[in-house]
Amino acid sequence: MHKYAIGVVGASGYSGIELCRILAAHPGVEVRFVASDRWEGVTVRARTGIGGAVGTLAYVRNAQALEASQGCDAVLLATPAEASLELVPALLERGVKVVDLSGAFRLADAAAYPRHYGFEHRTPGLLETAVYGLPELADRKAIAAARLVANPGCYPTAAALALVPLLRAGLLTDESIVIDAASGVSGAGRQASEAYSFCEVADDVRPYKVLRHQHTPEIAQSLARGAGRAVRVTFTPHLLPIRRGILSTASARLAPRVAPGTLADALRAAYRDEPLVEVLDTPEQVSIARTVGTARAAVAVSAADSGFDPGRVVVVSSIDNLLKGAASQAVQNLNLMLGLPERTALEPAPGVSPS
Amino acid sequence: MHKYAIGVVGASGYSGIELCRILAAHPGVEVRFVASDRWEGVTVRARTGIGGAVGTLAYVRNAQALEASQGCDAVLLATPAEASLELVPALLERGVKVVDLSGAFRLADAAAYPRHYGFEHRTPGLLETAVYGLPELADRKAIAAARLVANPGCYPTAAALALVPLLRAGLLTDESIVIDAASGVSGAGRQASEAYSFCEVADDVRPYKVLRHQHTPEIAQSLARGAGRAVRVTFTPHLLPIRRGILSTASARLAPRVAPGTLADALRAAYRDEPLVEVLDTPEQVSIARTVGTARAAVAVSAADSGFDPGRVVVVSSIDNLLKGAASQAVQNLNLMLGLPERTALEPAPGVSPS
Amino acid sequence: MHKYAIGVVGASGYSGIELCRILAAHPGVEVRFVASDRWEGVTVRARTGIGGAVGTLAYVRNAQALEASQGCDAVLLATPAEASLELVPALLERGVKVVDLSGAFRLADAAAYPRHYGFEHRTPGLLETAVYGLPELADRKAIAAARLVANPGCYPTAAALALVPLLRAGLLTDESIVIDAASGVSGAGRQASEAYSFCEVADDVRPYKVLRHQHTPEIAQSLARGAGRAVRVTFTPHLLPIRRGILSTASARLAPRVAPGTLADALRAAYRDEPLVEVLDTPEQVSIARTVGTARAAVAVSAADSGFDPGRVVVVSSIDNLLKGAASQAVQNLNLMLGLPERTALEPAPGVSPS
Amino acid sequence: MHKYAIGVVGASGYSGIELCRILAAHPGVEVRFVASDRWEGVTVRARTGIGGAVGTLAYVRNAQALEASQGCDAVLLATPAEASLELVPALLERGVKVVDLSGAFRLADAAAYPRHYGFEHRTPGLLETAVYGLPELADRKAIAAARLVANPGCYPTAAALALVPLLRAGLLTDESIVIDAASGVSGAGRQASEAYSFCEVADDVRPYKVLRHQHTPEIAQSLARGAGRAVRVTFTPHLLPIRRGILSTASARLAPRVAPGTLADALRAAYRDEPLVEVLDTPEQVSIARTVGTARAAVAVSAADSGFDPGRVVVVSSIDNLLKGAASQAVQNLNLMLGLPERTALEPAPGVSPS
Repeated sequence: MHKYAIGVVGASGYSGIELCRILAAHPGVEVRFVASDRWEGVTVRARTGIGGAVGTLAYVRNAQALEASQGCDAVLLATPAEASLELVPALLERGVKVVDLSGAFRLADAAAYPRHYGFEHRTPGLLETAVYGLPELADRKAIAAARLVANPGCYPTAAALALVPLLRAGLLTDESIVIDAASGVSGAGRQASEAYSFCEVADDVRPYKVLRHQHTPEIAQSLARGAGRAVRVTFTPHLLPIRRGILSTASARLAPRVAPGTLADALRAAYRDEPLVEVLDTPEQVSIARTVGTARAAVAVSAADSGFDPGRVVVVSSIDNLLKGAASQAVQNLNLMLGLPERTALEPAPGVSPS
Repeated sequence: MHKYAIGVVGASGYSGIELCRILAAHPGVEVRFVASDRWEGVTVRARTGIGGAVGTLAYVRNAQALEASQGCDAVLLATPAEASLELVPALLERGVKVVDLSGAFRLADAAAYPRHYGFEHRTPGLLETAVYGLPELADRKAIAAARLVANPGCYPTAAALALVPLLRAGLLTDESIVIDAASGVSGAGRQASEAYSFCEVADDVRPYKVLRHQHTPEIAQSLARGAGRAVRVTFTPHLLPIRRGILSTASARLAPRVAPGTLADALRAAYRDEPLVEVLDTPEQVSIARTVGTARAAVAVSAADSGFDPGRVVVVSSIDNLLKGAASQAVQNLNLMLGLPERTALEPAPGVSPS
Repeated sequence: MHKYAIGVVGASGYSGIELCRILAAHPGVEVRFVASDRWEGVTVRARTGIGGAVGTLAYVRNAQALEASQGCDAVLLATPAEASLELVPALLERGVKVVDLSGAFRLADAAAYPRHYGFEHRTPGLLETAVYGLPELADRKAIAAARLVANPGCYPTAAALALVPLLRAGLLTDESIVIDAASGVSGAGRQASEAYSFCEVADDVRPYKVLRHQHTPEIAQSLARGAGRAVRVTFTPHLLPIRRGILSTASARLAPRVAPGTLADALRAAYRDEPLVEVLDTPEQVSIARTVGTARAAVAVSAADSGFDPGRVVVVSSIDNLLKGAASQAVQNLNLMLGLPERTALEPAPGVSPS
Repeated sequence: MHKYAIGVVGASGYSGIELCRILAAHPGVEVRFVASDRWEGVTVRARTGIGGAVGTLAYVRNAQALEASQGCDAVLLATPAEASLELVPALLERGVKVVDLSGAFRLADAAAYPRHYGFEHRTPGLLETAVYGLPELADRKAIAAARLVANPGCYPTAAALALVPLLRAGLLTDESIVIDAASGVSGAGRQASEAYSFCEVADDVRPYKVLRHQHTPEIAQSLARGAGRAVRVTFTPHLLPIRRGILSTASARLAPRVAPGTLADALRAAYRDEPLVEVLDTPEQVSIARTVGTARAAVAVSAADSGFDPGRVVVVSSIDNLLKGAASQAVQNLNLMLGLPERTALEPAPGVSPS
């Protein structure tokens, strides 16, 4: 089998490690370099226990990534948005395809960056060519043809998978949608701060960035694309005392004269041929444990036709924030860009299991 | 100091243990008996480590509770609703005051019981005389005069403390309110079931009883009383991998021509003289850790005047489900009924601390 | 590739699920049946999310296992010892090879069973033919030739991997060895008991079965075989508030005139060609997280040549109790018995990762 | 009641917060100042939720502690050893009594400091006058008369309470003692480091400072004082994924011709009049949850008269590392030094409970 040459930048972050783990078992790629300033010079195996050829690589500094990417077919960036903003144009110029796991190229509107990401976007032209890579909801041909794929955020992935099929099918009113979601701590990245120390996080749950999380415009963009109109949406994230996983609970309003059962039908239709999205019968079956350690999402919907809020729709979804919310979705996109089967290295079930 | 004679039924449940712990340090009461079928014959100290006079009591069977309550001034029931339904009338007949921690007497409308609790209410007349005991939002004179106080549920306490002051002040529209809340596992009571085993709960979060939790009518009742009109409300509870604590995130709509800052003012005004409700500056400061192990609630509000959902109000509250959501609130009610200072045995800070 | 026909009994326990997960990705076997009384009639995928052909199987009752095993090359038993005691002779009679994950055939001395397992061994003759299957320490030819392999216990695997190489090399005195070990809750199996409920286990650590755990004779047997003499050993297990993983800390005494560095040399020599045992430089590098979700063990040793207890040797080891302590070790044994490469389906790193 | 004037330095650490919490409910003291560089200028209540008069204090800088201690009867130091080394002589010169929670004055032998604490002891003369304050095992008159009390370390407290009564009674041989202990993360203090971040600690257990923990000489000193001879001891600490609590499992050897039951008798005799040490019937009853949130220790012993290691003694103990292992023990010492009842503010059970 031909092996495509791949590089990973930001390889010591939690998503970066997952990328390395997946690629270590990927039959169609050869990882040429892994970059991380923190672990420069050490081998992947020594830090992470990952075996195979990837395990024998020593991390190079991020500054060496451009040089190392010479001759690579694609590079995966698990870097902060500011770093991606610099690296992406340079990689594209060298003819290297890029999957960027940061938010730097996810928003179509450059004007949104100063407010939500705190920087001016220096290459707004690239926002037009970047393809937003949520394969189950996107035009896969566009991903396959893309030179730059913006890999979706973790919360936006969970929210869009739950709501877009319902919006596309016209099953929801234009009443605003409330998304309360909660994430494991790895969503905040590798941290050396008191706020994310064990004692400050364990046994606690708290909301954060209320009414101002940078994933809100991304969620709004996905929902608007699904609905074909602007969608009012409130997103409130919470920090959970677990390492991995996202649970998203979205509340919306059933359109008039729609039977509640139509909602589940729409989800099943949307994901009938999508092995990585599992539609469950009831929201109670959707849990973080259902998807952690897997490349899959789980989703289910329920609606009230009477009671204290008739017409209420509740859609619950879960993903592993580091996999379907980051690394495994990036590999879906990479596979599409390389012309490989989309789920290569992502299923069937791994030989050993999630903890 | 005169000591009132008190009994506790259901004393081996998690709320019952907290009742015993509080009463062990209460200078104004003498606990005459503690009842629990599970631990019959064993001492409180042996099972729980609680010291003092309460620690030396041996649990009697629940069936002995009526006899043991002879001569008691009040009895606290930490029993399932079905058990309370039987015990309450018998205790009242004997002239014993009752604080019932179950849901058996919380709903004014007897017709709600078959649907939400699964039983016909056999003493609907008592629903009229029962006083709903959420002191910070109630008429304390009514609690003091009551022979039967229905102690509020944990989720309804968190929701009402967050929303009622805003509804009373007319600051919210009649758009339906979405309450997503999450509870530690002790909210489900002492369990010998696989579903609540450590391996099935740890590292996981999941919704449960979606659109059909029995606390929904109680929440709707509190909000309606606050608003002076029916309030549409959706309540979605989630199970957290922690032992104690509730976090409630409520989303509502700001009434037209109300400045967002008015919301925090209303909360501060409502709780200015309420040491057991702490109004914090921002929702991010409200966390489960802030209140676990204490008799207090924490609450904060934020509102959006622009962005993706202008007019959105988010009110976050937290309590310890076993204390302000059960045992310490019951003792507030007990103190009021006995003519004692309301916070006796509930503050200042305990000599040793929550874990 | 020829596919061997395999069955799994006890397939709904935590180890049984791991067996199914591994076999689902095993290129050399076809799982013919999975048996579990609890989940009879439901598919593996519905309960566990496991995909592939295994996911489509519906659980049959354990009583059907014998019939279903007709024509199978081998059956894996993840059943309680009492059930294995009955099933093993019946399977062997039918010419089916067996890997038994219970303790029923691990002890060579039938007389040990009444005391440590609470039953008389009904087929003591089989104890002689059973091969104790800890591949890295055993004669692999014997495992390959065996019709019945007794898969080691989780604690004994961790203890033996740490100590046997040191005993074989004669580096320890005959002073008694102290093993303090701790396990995640899944070691107790699927539980519907209050003692293993989340609230009783979370935030707590406690010893159990002090001086009377049934793994003690198995540990003593392994150490004695390694040392070529009886070894005095004390084993104290502890319950941890985590789902998976074992950490074992063993204290022994350095033999006279042995340089401390010889200990690490002996471990490295023993495991030089054993990819599933990782010898680390210092005990502090050995942690539960290092091995959970993998088929590997980690081990490291340190010794004091001065200080408060000169000559003290501390050997620390970790495994995933459900994998190297149960399911993945069983598949190592199965592979050897079928003539397949020993680590088939156990490495390299899985496509998606442990949580 | 006369109120003694007290100060707390290092008041924002986890032990310092517990000191403030206890003193806030202490009827015999008035806290004059609390010092913490980190939280300078903020009130205790704002950061910790602690109420009462203590809650209204604003933290001053540590550099202001000496000046603020003018007129204080006693100061409690919850500071690193290096800081205590400087502060203690200066406070004593001003006539202020000191309880030092650090290790700076615990070891009688000044020569031990460079090796175990990494500094030369600058005031070795003070080591002679410092009283080691473990009240249940000490001469309380000496504590009461002391100007400087060295408050014991957390691990040494757990170890000494378990072993000293057995050594004093001559029930153990001189075979070396193995202590494997495990602590919640708060034992490492407030941390802004990746190693103590939630993601690196959760779901994991690991040993640390194997054969070189600075508490080893302190344990050896306590055991030697109890035995009246040098005691060989190995101490291996482990990090647990919980916030609070220590469990210590000590293995020793029963002296010849001593009946195993004598061990429990010795513990019961030693602690008959000690309400803060609970002697339980079996080691399995000793758990971290038994003592977390309380000022108490729990201890139990078991011995083998046959089996795989006849004569083996296992003594298990637990404490809350922040209370009996730090703050509540410091208040025991403070109370003794001030002539107050030793358990003032430490029992009976607090009004609200540990989480």
